[in-house]
Amino acid sequence: MHFDGDWGPTMNGLLEHWKRWCAASGPLRFVDINLRGTGQVMFQDNPITGALFLAAIAWGSYAGGVPQVALGGLLGLVTATLTAMWLRVDADGLAAGLYGYNGILVGLALPTFLAPTAQLWACVVLGAAVSVVATLGTANVTRAWQVAALTFPFVLTTWLLLLATHAFAGLDGAALWPGGEIVPLDAAAANPLDPAAFLQGVVRSISQVFLKGNAVSALLFLAGLAVSSIAAAAFAVAGAVVAVTTAHLLGAESALISAGLLGFSPVLTAIALGSVFYRPGPRVVAYAALGTVFTVIVQGAMNVALTPLGIPALTAPFVLTSWLFLLPQQHFPAGAGK
Amino acid sequence: MHFDGDWGPTMNGLLEHWKRWCAASGPLRFVDINLRGTGQVMFQDNPITGALFLAAIAWGSYAGGVPQVALGGLLGLVTATLTAMWLRVDADGLAAGLYGYNGILVGLALPTFLAPTAQLWACVVLGAAVSVVATLGTANVTRAWQVAALTFPFVLTTWLLLLATHAFAGLDGAALWPGGEIVPLDAAAANPLDPAAFLQGVVRSISQVFLKGNAVSALLFLAGLAVSSIAAAAFAVAGAVVAVTTAHLLGAESALISAGLLGFSPVLTAIALGSVFYRPGPRVVAYAALGTVFTVIVQGAMNVALTPLGIPALTAPFVLTSWLFLLPQQHFPAGAGK
Amino acid sequence: MHFDGDWGPTMNGLLEHWKRWCAASGPLRFVDINLRGTGQVMFQDNPITGALFLAAIAWGSYAGGVPQVALGGLLGLVTATLTAMWLRVDADGLAAGLYGYNGILVGLALPTFLAPTAQLWACVVLGAAVSVVATLGTANVTRAWQVAALTFPFVLTTWLLLLATHAFAGLDGAALWPGGEIVPLDAAAANPLDPAAFLQGVVRSISQVFLKGNAVSALLFLAGLAVSSIAAAAFAVAGAVVAVTTAHLLGAESALISAGLLGFSPVLTAIALGSVFYRPGPRVVAYAALGTVFTVIVQGAMNVALTPLGIPALTAPFVLTSWLFLLPQQHFPAGAGK
Repeated sequence: MHFDGDWGPTMNGLLEHWKRWCAASGPLRFVDINLRGTGQVMFQDNPITGALFLAAIAWGSYAGGVPQVALGGLLGLVTATLTAMWLRVDADGLAAGLYGYNGILVGLALPTFLAPTAQLWACVVLGAAVSVVATLGTANVTRAWQVAALTFPFVLTTWLLLLATHAFAGLDGAALWPGGEIVPLDAAAANPLDPAAFLQGVVRSISQVFLKGNAVSALLFLAGLAVSSIAAAAFAVAGAVVAVTTAHLLGAESALISAGLLGFSPVLTAIALGSVFYRPGPRVVAYAALGTVFTVIVQGAMNVALTPLGIPALTAPFVLTSWLFLLPQQHFPAGAGK
Repeated sequence: MHFDGDWGPTMNGLLEHWKRWCAASGPLRFVDINLRGTGQVMFQDNPITGALFLAAIAWGSYAGGVPQVALGGLLGLVTATLTAMWLRVDADGLAAGLYGYNGILVGLALPTFLAPTAQLWACVVLGAAVSVVATLGTANVTRAWQVAALTFPFVLTTWLLLLATHAFAGLDGAALWPGGEIVPLDAAAANPLDPAAFLQGVVRSISQVFLKGNAVSALLFLAGLAVSSIAAAAFAVAGAVVAVTTAHLLGAESALISAGLLGFSPVLTAIALGSVFYRPGPRVVAYAALGTVFTVIVQGAMNVALTPLGIPALTAPFVLTSWLFLLPQQHFPAGAGK
Repeated sequence: MHFDGDWGPTMNGLLEHWKRWCAASGPLRFVDINLRGTGQVMFQDNPITGALFLAAIAWGSYAGGVPQVALGGLLGLVTATLTAMWLRVDADGLAAGLYGYNGILVGLALPTFLAPTAQLWACVVLGAAVSVVATLGTANVTRAWQVAALTFPFVLTTWLLLLATHAFAGLDGAALWPGGEIVPLDAAAANPLDPAAFLQGVVRSISQVFLKGNAVSALLFLAGLAVSSIAAAAFAVAGAVVAVTTAHLLGAESALISAGLLGFSPVLTAIALGSVFYRPGPRVVAYAALGTVFTVIVQGAMNVALTPLGIPALTAPFVLTSWLFLLPQQHFPAGAGK
């Protein structure tokens, strides 16, 4: 995914300098690949975006008292990049960070839900490496329909590792809830949202893309998006507003809405459909809005369906809905990210 | 799917008149598309079939005291057709009703299981619109293997919306059972079937294709099939007989058999394999019979697998089995519906 | 999958004699197809391998007091071969036993978990026949990515039939456990493994490929592998050692490890990735080791995920992981079994 971006001259100059330095230095090129891999979590092939995203992750982990999450993310990112090199992937995709974004997500997710043991770190390395295999495999399959792998490799790998925690005493799923029966939502949990809670839901829907419920992080993520693509930042905010509104109108649990846990997948759908894979325009905006609203339904459905298994939906609602809405691509103009 | 049909001269004349009227009138063409969309639930590209099916649905809903089900079906059907027009789908597929049959099924299913609230009607519109996106997407994928989308878009969309009822207080899954543990069937529930119960099971297996357990509706559905294709009507009846017999020999719950709830997917499999996608003949009849028997197994399996989730299998047993039996198509002669 | 093998002159001479006899006799050719079908469970197109595997199955069933399991395997095998002939499959694939290995596995699995009633034998015949349809269908789909169907047809067919036991009183899933809630593993169940238990786990991981926990059978299986391919036998043993070690380090239940129930899927992954579909070499060995370790995680994950449904994972962990690791095939040299 390549973007022309819409930065001012300063930002462009900075990026040109960086590219020259990278051309002259192997270690800097490696850093560049990893920064772009971080940016690709939100579809941005841009090292400045990646640096701002990493800052957001670091701050969110520090503020939340879980520094191991940021460390896990770094370990997963670097492992994935090294695995991709060992597997001799295509040079363009490697340089654009396309083999790193699933690895960093695996590395952020596992320490979020598991206790920090030696086996956890082994699983981060294993999961990040497998995420690259899964990326190559998924791309081989979805290429026939000109659809990207999205974060499916992250979801598949992490679901399997989280499920496995219940089978292995060495993996301690401390922050996973136990599997249980599905019960309808108590209507009392769906309170009216006041404006502050609404705003909080919107902001955290953006930061939860990286599994963080933190307002400062959310602003850093938005800044990272904006330096690469104003359209992407606009669709992220609009997607979050649509998601929080939809969830509220359907009577979702207010605590989930405010924590951003019903909005992060719709945010990704909005960016992907609205600004990356289709060229923005009135029909595309309406189509992206339909997809964003439906992602809220899918998020609710997957939360319910995974209740007996005791694992979170991760970004699966985004992957499923976006694949569904990207497959009929011949009916819309292709975007820059195709 | 196009059929030459085997109607007498009267029926052919009527159809010719109708085609001339439609050619002269935009609104009538729109009605024609929606009637054919209704007929396509059982693979018939025929407006008279669609009209008889709509009559069967109306009667079944009225007799069952749930008029909102018929209204939901109409709303879903029209929404799907309008969405298809907005998405600029191929003209031939649109005219043949291929973008309407999933929408009408979504519109029939949601009010069958959910209480009639404002959010329900919003979900019918949303689900019917998404069913068209899913139809385009599924067809893009399955085209490579020359296999039709069947009712997969309906099943996917409706499953997600039904699951979501447990996550949103605004969606009241009044007629859904709660999720629960799987327990083996009590042998006492598998009584010997008397001839009256057997006949009831056969008849209702046909009407349950449209979520209706009603004998008058079943006869109207059969009439609708027969005016388009005698073979389709014959395979529907034969499929129902095979399904009820198989379910009984395996010791299924008698109440489920008599309600037609183990037979509607096998009926669709029998029509699809026997009369639509393969050219009828001794080998095809044997193959369709094998598929019909296996659909009963798959129906039982899916009923069990969905017990913890508390949602119905819908026509998923038909979709899975028919895809399985349609994929090796090079081993059988292609039917008129290919 | 064709192998040159690495037998001594005696074995080669024996095989040449057999081929001459088969060329002269229809019944012997039928026996040959079925023997090769048995060998293909572990990817070996070799009638001597098949004969040794059948001996291992017979001994394991006899020693375990369940002769109906060996009978079921034979019935499934012959049914599958006859079904393939009726479906007029390709002559080369039929002769190589590619339409028999899923049938024998269906026939071994059903009597392992179900009580021996008339309906059981009907289900063995039905399941074995459907496994051939599923093999043709799966191959049609996976051919586009040059990936084999593996044992997916067996897993799909058997899962559906096992789930159906809870829906039909005539199918008695005597040896299936009831569905239940997922609970984390009690750490006390993960004891240190003594050398004897370790060895037992390795040996039984090999025999459990055919659903048998028996040391004599394991040696016969290894002999059958070795007469066809020394590399395959070596990867089977290495895969079992890696699997038992990984499972133990992750803190798996010791009783499961020793019974070989966490190792049979990794054994198949090791043979497939290491000696069949890729050409052995240092990079391939490392890649196969990664896949083997991850299969242990997937086995744990699937055991957990299937707990609410009360059915076993069968060889699904092998199928999922091997597909994942075979899809990026352009990054490794193709093996003899491609």
